[in-house]
Amino acid sequence: MAIAEFVQKSIGSWRSLRSVHHLAFSYLEEVKSDIEIISLNRDDPEVVSLCKQHNVDPDLVESPFRMTWEGESDWDEKEELKGTTVLVPIPNGDNPAQGRLLRDRGYAETMAAIANYEILNDGTFVLTTNYDRASAEEKIWFINPKLRFRVSMIKTSDGKGVTTASFSSEIKSD
Amino acid sequence: MAIAEFVQKSIGSWRSLRSVHHLAFSYLEEVKSDIEIISLNRDDPEVVSLCKQHNVDPDLVESPFRMTWEGESDWDEKEELKGTTVLVPIPNGDNPAQGRLLRDRGYAETMAAIANYEILNDGTFVLTTNYDRASAEEKIWFINPKLRFRVSMIKTSDGKGVTTASFSSEIKSD
Repeated sequence: MAIAEFVQKSIGSWRSLRSVHHLAFSYLEEVKSDIEIISLNRDDPEVVSLCKQHNVDPDLVESPFRMTWEGESDWDEKEELKGTTVLVPIPNGDNPAQGRLLRDRGYAETMAAIANYEILNDGTFVLTTNYDRASAEEKIWFINPKLRFRVSMIKTSDGKGVTTASFSSEIKSD
Repeated sequence: MAIAEFVQKSIGSWRSLRSVHHLAFSYLEEVKSDIEIISLNRDDPEVVSLCKQHNVDPDLVESPFRMTWEGESDWDEKEELKGTTVLVPIPNGDNPAQGRLLRDRGYAETMAAIANYEILNDGTFVLTTNYDRASAEEKIWFINPKLRFRVSMIKTSDGKGVTTASFSSEIKSD
């Protein structure tokens, strides 16, 4: 599967139930959110600007999209869990199952980030992002067109281990 | 990775935190359990008996093991979540990354079951079990020698969909 098919399947509105495992405390946090994923044109000003920022030829872009989310956690109901980010896949020339994913905002830190993706033989999308003080790994796979799973984890960059792991079940709502 | 390596990494005591997503209700159940996995000899009477029961040549057995678990759910604290099962891998002759897994007890129903396994390129162990009225799929992968993740789901056999999905983070405790 190439990135275009993965993005195509992801376009739409999703109701996400996420359980966050705080490993050191054996503690579970519950997050419910609505996620909307829309496709963007290659010549969208935000896509072009992100390419410029990362010195990437806009002709290499494949299936850019915007993800917007809004949710609430059972830990802190006052915390605002909402945001939006533009994501721009840049497939590798020699292996279209791998590539880079430009983003204007990372998950774990609120700064621009470059992630590397790979699509495994069974269709699982694997995303690895290195930040200054941590790295994140995310696996997303479709069970059927209306249901996808997502497993994420954050590792400390000093290699001491995984602090947080989460599982999301996402049901298409449109 | 072959099944022998996967079983070898699994041997030991694990502390499991499991979040069960009841998809129709967007409801989360929390299960904490202790899991112990010990290796068995090929000539263990229970292994030999399971082979006989399934008409399988005991010489084809690779790395049989016993799994024992005991836990509690936040749904019903009186419910007894404990059990033990013998698991007997039978790798395919022509492709050692695939095979059958004999068990004296299934997860979803308390009957003997045969499951099919496959080990993906990235080391993920995928197990599919067909029961009378449902099928179960389980993915297990190691993050490091002391941490593994497990995603399970149960599908109704009429194909109407996935009713339950769960994520376990399992930390080695010995």
